[in-house]
Amino acid sequence: MGEVLLRLSTKEYLRFSQAHGFNADYGGSELNVISTLTNFGMESAFVTRLPDNDIGDCALAQIHQHKISTDHIVRGGDRMGIYFLEKGASLRGSKVVYDRAFSSFCTIGKGMVDWKAVFKDAGWFHWSGITAGVSQGAADLCMEAIEEANQMGLTISTDFNYRANLWNYGKSPSEIMEKMVAMCDVVLAGDYASKQYFGIEPSGNTEQTRQVSLCQELIRKFPKVKKVAVTNRGTINALHNTWSAVLYSGKQLYNSKPYDITYIVDRIGAGDSFMGALIYGLCHFDEQRALDFAVAASCLKHTIYGDTNLVSKEEVLSLMAGNNSGHVKR
Amino acid sequence: MGEVLLRLSTKEYLRFSQAHGFNADYGGSELNVISTLTNFGMESAFVTRLPDNDIGDCALAQIHQHKISTDHIVRGGDRMGIYFLEKGASLRGSKVVYDRAFSSFCTIGKGMVDWKAVFKDAGWFHWSGITAGVSQGAADLCMEAIEEANQMGLTISTDFNYRANLWNYGKSPSEIMEKMVAMCDVVLAGDYASKQYFGIEPSGNTEQTRQVSLCQELIRKFPKVKKVAVTNRGTINALHNTWSAVLYSGKQLYNSKPYDITYIVDRIGAGDSFMGALIYGLCHFDEQRALDFAVAASCLKHTIYGDTNLVSKEEVLSLMAGNNSGHVKR
Amino acid sequence: MGEVLLRLSTKEYLRFSQAHGFNADYGGSELNVISTLTNFGMESAFVTRLPDNDIGDCALAQIHQHKISTDHIVRGGDRMGIYFLEKGASLRGSKVVYDRAFSSFCTIGKGMVDWKAVFKDAGWFHWSGITAGVSQGAADLCMEAIEEANQMGLTISTDFNYRANLWNYGKSPSEIMEKMVAMCDVVLAGDYASKQYFGIEPSGNTEQTRQVSLCQELIRKFPKVKKVAVTNRGTINALHNTWSAVLYSGKQLYNSKPYDITYIVDRIGAGDSFMGALIYGLCHFDEQRALDFAVAASCLKHTIYGDTNLVSKEEVLSLMAGNNSGHVKR
Amino acid sequence: MGEVLLRLSTKEYLRFSQAHGFNADYGGSELNVISTLTNFGMESAFVTRLPDNDIGDCALAQIHQHKISTDHIVRGGDRMGIYFLEKGASLRGSKVVYDRAFSSFCTIGKGMVDWKAVFKDAGWFHWSGITAGVSQGAADLCMEAIEEANQMGLTISTDFNYRANLWNYGKSPSEIMEKMVAMCDVVLAGDYASKQYFGIEPSGNTEQTRQVSLCQELIRKFPKVKKVAVTNRGTINALHNTWSAVLYSGKQLYNSKPYDITYIVDRIGAGDSFMGALIYGLCHFDEQRALDFAVAASCLKHTIYGDTNLVSKEEVLSLMAGNNSGHVKR
Amino acid sequence: MGEVLLRLSTKEYLRFSQAHGFNADYGGSELNVISTLTNFGMESAFVTRLPDNDIGDCALAQIHQHKISTDHIVRGGDRMGIYFLEKGASLRGSKVVYDRAFSSFCTIGKGMVDWKAVFKDAGWFHWSGITAGVSQGAADLCMEAIEEANQMGLTISTDFNYRANLWNYGKSPSEIMEKMVAMCDVVLAGDYASKQYFGIEPSGNTEQTRQVSLCQELIRKFPKVKKVAVTNRGTINALHNTWSAVLYSGKQLYNSKPYDITYIVDRIGAGDSFMGALIYGLCHFDEQRALDFAVAASCLKHTIYGDTNLVSKEEVLSLMAGNNSGHVKR
Amino acid sequence: MGEVLLRLSTKEYLRFSQAHGFNADYGGSELNVISTLTNFGMESAFVTRLPDNDIGDCALAQIHQHKISTDHIVRGGDRMGIYFLEKGASLRGSKVVYDRAFSSFCTIGKGMVDWKAVFKDAGWFHWSGITAGVSQGAADLCMEAIEEANQMGLTISTDFNYRANLWNYGKSPSEIMEKMVAMCDVVLAGDYASKQYFGIEPSGNTEQTRQVSLCQELIRKFPKVKKVAVTNRGTINALHNTWSAVLYSGKQLYNSKPYDITYIVDRIGAGDSFMGALIYGLCHFDEQRALDFAVAASCLKHTIYGDTNLVSKEEVLSLMAGNNSGHVKR
Repeated sequence: MGEVLLRLSTKEYLRFSQAHGFNADYGGSELNVISTLTNFGMESAFVTRLPDNDIGDCALAQIHQHKISTDHIVRGGDRMGIYFLEKGASLRGSKVVYDRAFSSFCTIGKGMVDWKAVFKDAGWFHWSGITAGVSQGAADLCMEAIEEANQMGLTISTDFNYRANLWNYGKSPSEIMEKMVAMCDVVLAGDYASKQYFGIEPSGNTEQTRQVSLCQELIRKFPKVKKVAVTNRGTINALHNTWSAVLYSGKQLYNSKPYDITYIVDRIGAGDSFMGALIYGLCHFDEQRALDFAVAASCLKHTIYGDTNLVSKEEVLSLMAGNNSGHVKR
Repeated sequence: MGEVLLRLSTKEYLRFSQAHGFNADYGGSELNVISTLTNFGMESAFVTRLPDNDIGDCALAQIHQHKISTDHIVRGGDRMGIYFLEKGASLRGSKVVYDRAFSSFCTIGKGMVDWKAVFKDAGWFHWSGITAGVSQGAADLCMEAIEEANQMGLTISTDFNYRANLWNYGKSPSEIMEKMVAMCDVVLAGDYASKQYFGIEPSGNTEQTRQVSLCQELIRKFPKVKKVAVTNRGTINALHNTWSAVLYSGKQLYNSKPYDITYIVDRIGAGDSFMGALIYGLCHFDEQRALDFAVAASCLKHTIYGDTNLVSKEEVLSLMAGNNSGHVKR
Repeated sequence: MGEVLLRLSTKEYLRFSQAHGFNADYGGSELNVISTLTNFGMESAFVTRLPDNDIGDCALAQIHQHKISTDHIVRGGDRMGIYFLEKGASLRGSKVVYDRAFSSFCTIGKGMVDWKAVFKDAGWFHWSGITAGVSQGAADLCMEAIEEANQMGLTISTDFNYRANLWNYGKSPSEIMEKMVAMCDVVLAGDYASKQYFGIEPSGNTEQTRQVSLCQELIRKFPKVKKVAVTNRGTINALHNTWSAVLYSGKQLYNSKPYDITYIVDRIGAGDSFMGALIYGLCHFDEQRALDFAVAASCLKHTIYGDTNLVSKEEVLSLMAGNNSGHVKR
Repeated sequence: MGEVLLRLSTKEYLRFSQAHGFNADYGGSELNVISTLTNFGMESAFVTRLPDNDIGDCALAQIHQHKISTDHIVRGGDRMGIYFLEKGASLRGSKVVYDRAFSSFCTIGKGMVDWKAVFKDAGWFHWSGITAGVSQGAADLCMEAIEEANQMGLTISTDFNYRANLWNYGKSPSEIMEKMVAMCDVVLAGDYASKQYFGIEPSGNTEQTRQVSLCQELIRKFPKVKKVAVTNRGTINALHNTWSAVLYSGKQLYNSKPYDITYIVDRIGAGDSFMGALIYGLCHFDEQRALDFAVAASCLKHTIYGDTNLVSKEEVLSLMAGNNSGHVKR
Repeated sequence: MGEVLLRLSTKEYLRFSQAHGFNADYGGSELNVISTLTNFGMESAFVTRLPDNDIGDCALAQIHQHKISTDHIVRGGDRMGIYFLEKGASLRGSKVVYDRAFSSFCTIGKGMVDWKAVFKDAGWFHWSGITAGVSQGAADLCMEAIEEANQMGLTISTDFNYRANLWNYGKSPSEIMEKMVAMCDVVLAGDYASKQYFGIEPSGNTEQTRQVSLCQELIRKFPKVKKVAVTNRGTINALHNTWSAVLYSGKQLYNSKPYDITYIVDRIGAGDSFMGALIYGLCHFDEQRALDFAVAASCLKHTIYGDTNLVSKEEVLSLMAGNNSGHVKR
Repeated sequence: MGEVLLRLSTKEYLRFSQAHGFNADYGGSELNVISTLTNFGMESAFVTRLPDNDIGDCALAQIHQHKISTDHIVRGGDRMGIYFLEKGASLRGSKVVYDRAFSSFCTIGKGMVDWKAVFKDAGWFHWSGITAGVSQGAADLCMEAIEEANQMGLTISTDFNYRANLWNYGKSPSEIMEKMVAMCDVVLAGDYASKQYFGIEPSGNTEQTRQVSLCQELIRKFPKVKKVAVTNRGTINALHNTWSAVLYSGKQLYNSKPYDITYIVDRIGAGDSFMGALIYGLCHFDEQRALDFAVAASCLKHTIYGDTNLVSKEEVLSLMAGNNSGHVKR
């Protein structure tokens, strides 16, 4: 469940002021998670609200194309949320301008979705802090979903996904997030988000001790949470990053291999693809392998244009096996 | 004065559902009028409100490029209004999807513009029914401007520009428009708009008698109005139209030559280019010539991509002189 | 059921020898028929065979995007059939170069499809003369399908679709087509195809008497056939055609309104969109209205890029109601 | 022999002021003539002068691609001549901005070409009034070539091709052209050019009597000239023209069928393709057929992007046979 | 003051021989300097000469769009200077082909500009060695400007900008440059240019001692010069450079932080953006900060397509503050 | 001699599933070798078989454009072989999907080419393992050519070029290749290919000793072979490789300088450009220089889009001389 945004990105490395046109794609954190899942072959359904116009139809077709069930998508409201994207290079970072206020998803609310129907035959429910942050209505509906999912015995996962430009509907993040995270099983956390949401500040002198500390604090605070993952991005320049992650099961900390990623094609949605692949991994592999799968999958995301991680399971497994990308696959 | 919209149009004849990108341009009825004026060499200033972000900056640069003064443009509000455009062909008409609600211009209001400064040294003020229709705040500000312009002795013109999808802020068009039009000197009217705004239904059996009737009704109703123009589009198909206009001075009806326009490149903004060229014409020519100039200029607009009529005065005069477009100008 | 082809078309009006790239789309007569149906809201499933590689995956995703069930699509064989398309203009006609030999669909054969499963809950089966003409295996499988559909009580329709460059696997068209058409209910016929397939030459001095004659001959020859439709394209130039059709019910000849179509965006698939809309029409309207619906829908196809008729039912009904395309829909 | 120009054209119907890029092609009247000839299968060699830089190399490769011999092309001088092209539509004509001054061809001169080697084994030499008009050096070299060709017994043809923006090197056209045309066998003349060059004004009340009169005047003035052709373009709008021609053999006037050409893709080079096809026709057919071939070929040129007439002999013959372009050639 | 060139660049990494089109932009060393200044919010006016045709109009509009005053631009002459650009990658360097001979700016001369009017209310005048090198007329006019600026008390800056393919109008660089530089206050010098212009060869064993030596030599030779800057580019490959600079005030040598720039989007105009940002810096900051600002600004230029450095002051200050580009600015 | 393939590549870094169009180019291992040769100024002729349709014509024109003689190219067969290419980035490798079965070249056979005529005046014949692997007919024709070339005293070279997806016509590679390689003079070998073809496994602990071992084994096995070259690609990621080669003359091992290549524009055809440049080098330089020339030339190929190495001899020599690509060549 989450918002779909129309992504309008300038071509190549053009700045907004140089653009005479935009590429048009559809994305959004939770959609990126679910499209990763269907891409690896899992069945899934997406819940969102789209305006009842041609632009909403385009988004719907895009979701449908990823073989995600669109049966529970609600139509209505004023407009599709938009984000404008300018891709950086070298010493100039990428830039996002949001135009998501007053969107159809923002004005969603309690009772608009039949969660019992949505969760029938489902095993996992995923949401993110973005939904909690866009509006009271969205937060309410999300809470409704979490409660229903909890009651129906689904595994619940969340990505903290703190966005500074949201959370302006009059509630503090902690007020909202605390109850929601408390019912979750799997959490993708982050330093900054954890501080913003819950005032958690990890202790320790090394990256690793700080990560363990963060995970422990979260598991202490939220007893239902069984697994906490944290990704770790090192930023050498706009097109050259390092990427790794840890997964903490309450008992053990799993570390992934670190990857050096240059030259990056598109890093938007990398965290989401990690989340999606982690869910897939936790459903199919042991914890170490689930983490490795998620890190390798999200590494590959950096090489794919758009929000969606269009890689196959075979490609992820091949990268995990250390296969070098330098040869042309014929 | 008026709203600037980001125009996102599909390439060539693609439908929205086929589009993987949009051309991005900036337009809007009143901006199209003023860019026509500056294009013909008149000095002018535009009043609008743009969001204080990169997209607002792009719009500002675009206005600046047309050599329109941007000194009185206000920054602020949430977002740039957008319209999505799909160009039709043959038996399929063009389609516009508006996403202009909650725009920076919508949330403009009284007192935000120093009209005395704007109108200093100015001779003409133009506004349109779109501004009156978007929101109470815009209508209030527009009324403020009209009153000030009236007091300072400017010629005031308006284009009725009725848009069915506006006027949803709780006032009826007549309530708002009547006071505004009453202070105008030059009016670009239309059958349908006149009916919607004032309940005027022209009588007569022929197109011409109906047009005279409409003009007379308007002049009777609004004694300050000195000139009424009405354009007349015949629609053979989406890319083949006929185009002419009349101008009524209270005493005399001037008829333009009718033009056959095929194949149309872009008809958005044709009416606006007529309005702009009429203002130019009334400032420089006699009434018949002003009308002929306006019709020829707006004819040429149909051959120009985008909202703006990028033709020179010489090109308009050459078309008026009957010069055939079939020869390559070398 | 039918073959999907990768369509590689040059941009704008470039000749093959000028092309440095191709637009890539997926089409094929029967796919165009079925995508018309799903576009109007009918549920349907497509049967074809696609190679088990990335290009086959692309075709599959494309079919899926049109909300057509892909459950019965078979994977295997050597390659995707391709056609190269160069769009004509004025006095130069469009040109197609086929590269469809040895395709996965060509090497399909009897027993590869579980027709009982395909036809479960289905009411209509459509095939075309192209399938019969590509290879013995495709013809055999098509015959198998027709027999099964017949037995299970489905309505069966066919489009004659004679292609001179097919039928080179050693059988004469009449040998193959006669048994197949004999089991059909609805037929989209054509002068030239009827002559090639069955040696039928309509008599009569006027277009209309010739059309009636053709329909009568076909219904006489194939007693199960209940309805015969014939489209009528007048070709003024490559971008300017006239378009109409007749439908003969055995008792009565229905005539459609003739349309003048200029300027054509893409006429490939117009006949297929007629067939699809006719099936839709016969399922929902009376015969005259079904014919009118099919002609209006296929008229609009000429304004849509690609093989697929991306128009809504509302747009077709609006054209039938005589609504002029010259106005911008806002 | 003639100048090659780099053609920089805006995309689609964009005005110069809207262009952020140009299509780049290479053309020029005489190159267009010769590429028509090689396209129909005749062997030929082109004489020009290109700058010795990358842009000159590009032009050379382009000429080579048309299978024209480049053995006699001279390298040197300062720059490639350029023309900027903006394509018109409907009531707005196309526009050309020349930037050809100081080009490598302009600064060509006597003695730079070994005409004896060029004309060895050759049967026909073609030049145009453009070469005579660009500079004294080009005119001198052209005269040198004409004299040599004359001496070696080649058939000599010329296209009058008057360009008002040339002829500014201090000589009057008549001074230069008279001696040159006097040695020609075949002439493509025009009303306006004939008046500018030789003060000839055809008499007569009808188009036809005027054309006969023009031809007769020319043949009277230049006794060596055996054939005069005149093309006749009717200009309905920028994309809709009529097209026909006459050929006068001194004894008989041959008339072509008139063609209606809409919608025009690119009319630049149509006259040149007429000239090329006329040369081809006079070498292979009788006079009526030569004229018909030339008119049909140049008709088709209007449907081809760029300066070059990329149509096959078969396509021209098919149009001459009245074959309708409305059918897709499969 | 300086020449504006039409820049025609191939797309992506295509070689000239692969290009079927060019991107079209307008640049030139001095225009790049001034657009940097206006971009940072300073008011400025540009002096140049443009042809009086559509291409000249395009250049004018482009300059206007950067909010640079175009009031003192002169129209006339034959043509716009052009440069063709092919972007290199890895081990293949970028390549420029000039076509700037005979341009409108080349044929400019003394008395064509009213310098008193230009310099009224101005505080700074910038010119470069390119202007001195294109023609006697340009050098004369530049000298005229320098003398007037000197008399009116403006700060005068120059960029040595030695171009080997200029200086072919019969004067040696030293003959011309010596008098001009003698009146300057701020100089952007370079090793190679200093040697070509004045025979100066810096001594020293390290890069730094050599730079100090060069600065000292220049200040010794030109007593009016108060500040000398030298940029230092290390070239690892075509898309990977290092970048730093020094500023010498006569008393003290300021060093900038060195930057590692990979992957470069467009390095054309980087030196010009350094010059512009240095002028801005010297007007607003102390010397160390001015240098740091100039180096950071020109670093960012390498990430921007085109000649113009479209970065904001905030972005430059953020880079100076060490902010990492790896994060997406939302 | 070899097959020409139509290369359909996705734009930028798009995956096949994201592509709505393809760039279209023509390449193939042996064509890439020969275009390298003509690019450096050697005369050459290509032997292949192309379908007799528009796509075959396009390929022919492309070959002609490289100034390669097309006199001995045979027309006929069913279709042009195609390969689809998706360019990788960072940790995702490039991907090729072949669609070359049933091509015109596949169905070539003995006696279709007049080798005596082809080899008249020729000094060198090149073929590759791809031709041997596509079909029995191609292998037979290739053997025929090798025998004739041998008899006529040409130097014969081969590139092993093992492709796992070929060799499926019922013969083992060793059965075919052994006789063919036995008649060769110059061999471009590879570890993997040597093992697949002849079961050769080089011994040694270092890269260098293994390379010497491989070369020695080959020369021992094939006494006519005088020179063996092996290229060595190190794959850091998809866009960052190292590149070097060795050449063994039977007596001496020549090593090239190693190059670090980042960021790679297009590595397809790099090996072919090495082969071509090696042939050129062996014809013009001593062995060390020939090797250095071949390595530098193929290094530059990595910076060129497409299959063909469009670099000049001067550019290769400049890289060999250590000239840095970081400066813009003006």
